[in-house]
Amino acid sequence: MNNELLAYKNYIESQLNSLELPEKPNQLYHPLRYFLQIGGKRMRPILALISSQLFSGDFQKARGAAMSVELFHNFSLIHDDIMDNAPLRRGQETVHEKWNLNVGILSGDGLLIEAYKQLEEYDGDTFKKLLVLFNKTAIEVCEGQQYDMDFETRDDVSIEEYIEMIRLKTAVLLGCSLKMGAIVGGADEDNANKIYEFGVNLGVAFQIQDDYLDSFGEGEKIGKQVGGDIIAAKKTYLLLSAYEDGNKKQIERLNDALSIENKEEKVKRVLDIFNELNIAEKTRRKMKEHHDVAISNLDNISLDQATKKPLYSLADFLFGREH
Amino acid sequence: MNNELLAYKNYIESQLNSLELPEKPNQLYHPLRYFLQIGGKRMRPILALISSQLFSGDFQKARGAAMSVELFHNFSLIHDDIMDNAPLRRGQETVHEKWNLNVGILSGDGLLIEAYKQLEEYDGDTFKKLLVLFNKTAIEVCEGQQYDMDFETRDDVSIEEYIEMIRLKTAVLLGCSLKMGAIVGGADEDNANKIYEFGVNLGVAFQIQDDYLDSFGEGEKIGKQVGGDIIAAKKTYLLLSAYEDGNKKQIERLNDALSIENKEEKVKRVLDIFNELNIAEKTRRKMKEHHDVAISNLDNISLDQATKKPLYSLADFLFGREH
Repeated sequence: MNNELLAYKNYIESQLNSLELPEKPNQLYHPLRYFLQIGGKRMRPILALISSQLFSGDFQKARGAAMSVELFHNFSLIHDDIMDNAPLRRGQETVHEKWNLNVGILSGDGLLIEAYKQLEEYDGDTFKKLLVLFNKTAIEVCEGQQYDMDFETRDDVSIEEYIEMIRLKTAVLLGCSLKMGAIVGGADEDNANKIYEFGVNLGVAFQIQDDYLDSFGEGEKIGKQVGGDIIAAKKTYLLLSAYEDGNKKQIERLNDALSIENKEEKVKRVLDIFNELNIAEKTRRKMKEHHDVAISNLDNISLDQATKKPLYSLADFLFGREH
Repeated sequence: MNNELLAYKNYIESQLNSLELPEKPNQLYHPLRYFLQIGGKRMRPILALISSQLFSGDFQKARGAAMSVELFHNFSLIHDDIMDNAPLRRGQETVHEKWNLNVGILSGDGLLIEAYKQLEEYDGDTFKKLLVLFNKTAIEVCEGQQYDMDFETRDDVSIEEYIEMIRLKTAVLLGCSLKMGAIVGGADEDNANKIYEFGVNLGVAFQIQDDYLDSFGEGEKIGKQVGGDIIAAKKTYLLLSAYEDGNKKQIERLNDALSIENKEEKVKRVLDIFNELNIAEKTRRKMKEHHDVAISNLDNISLDQATKKPLYSLADFLFGREH
């Protein structure tokens, strides 16, 4: 992260620290404070701040919007962690694990409402535009989560459906964050839509990269075990591509490999098939496709190239091309 | 229910029936449609419509506000049913029971967002005012639910705390419904606040009546088993009053009675103590206290008495004094 991004991150951390939440009832608000302080990259609020800076020269105009998308993101994590039965988040106990199911549900609900409250610092048309975008995005994220869960028990998921799922579950909130920054920064509708599309395409590319790194990344770099998705037989872009491209024999071998108990052996055998089918190359191509569309969206925003530099840097940073 | 209330209820049912929800993902939207059609009194949206009619002569101005409070109410029921482990709601399977926990959580989330979306038909100051009130109310309802859960495991709940809990969990949403109707109907702030207080006090009185009828109502009239709260040892206004008013001996007998396995015997023994302590009378007094404040709030609204008639009728209706 470069200094500019770090400064934005620090600003968000300080805003989160000074977020005024009541003391009581403690079982509602304590879990919120706990979850907000276990951290994260704060990517979404940073996007909102950058975007506002870009269009208005004042990142602080996006304070409420930035907080809103960050609180929303944390709401969705608290509920997703319940649905995914996850004991840990960023190495710390999840809310339903540290407290219980009911606390997880209700404090998630509370956080969603707090996300809406953050937008109260805006008025008039700006407020309305932010709310409409936020509502649309919020329901799309729920749809994405539902598709993700549906896919676990389906064996006919197409790559197209998968891309649509990650668009909804992850990418639209990045687009929303940027567009909110554009709205509060006074961008015209055309520019606001372009920065939205930039965010969505970047988000899709980023999620595909996430799948890619699970199989082809270096362990320390990605901060988790290589092959975790394979062990869990998760329907990633890679696995779905292998099913799409493999012949009958290869698909049989893939199914056999996925049923192996020994984790190391399982990962090795699946990777063998991925390599035979050139899945790494295919995945990089798909990633690049969305990355390129994102960059062209960015190119088309009617601002000086110099002004847009932070977003080009960010796109590089997200794809490990930081200089 | 008189004809006017019935007409409002029918209007809401038709609006709910024509609510446009996407088809997919089916596991997200089907549970919403299912839950919305299992019915209910539609008290909250009716309040919004009446209030708008009162101040503007046009109940349809409150369409979005009415839908919003009804969808919010149903969101809270779906999540509460999970937290309370309830298998049935109005005689039909609850969402988490008919589908599963994850569907209950996510479709609840979706319904909360849809509740916000309903307000998009308003603009400018009206929109902002509605949102601010809605946010405040929504978080209060969550706080009320948390207190309610906290009380289950606490043995030092005061009557004051109990009243505050039912105010948050139930009454503020009634006040909010009326105030939203007032806002869209163009009421001034003073009148809007008075109708809010009318709703809150009516809600508290109504909830106390609910407790009262469980012990002292006639079975068929209340549509549930008399003594259900006693069997569940629920900390109602009555039980808390008995603990507050009873001497050491009586409290011991109360505790003994509550630990009896046989349901009939349990209810009988607890009712004996309620009768010794005059709990029925005390409860009716408290109910009347809030009912009277509600009526005086209504008296103070600066509109013709004739115009306000539907709300007087409603207050009578809710307390079984309908003529």
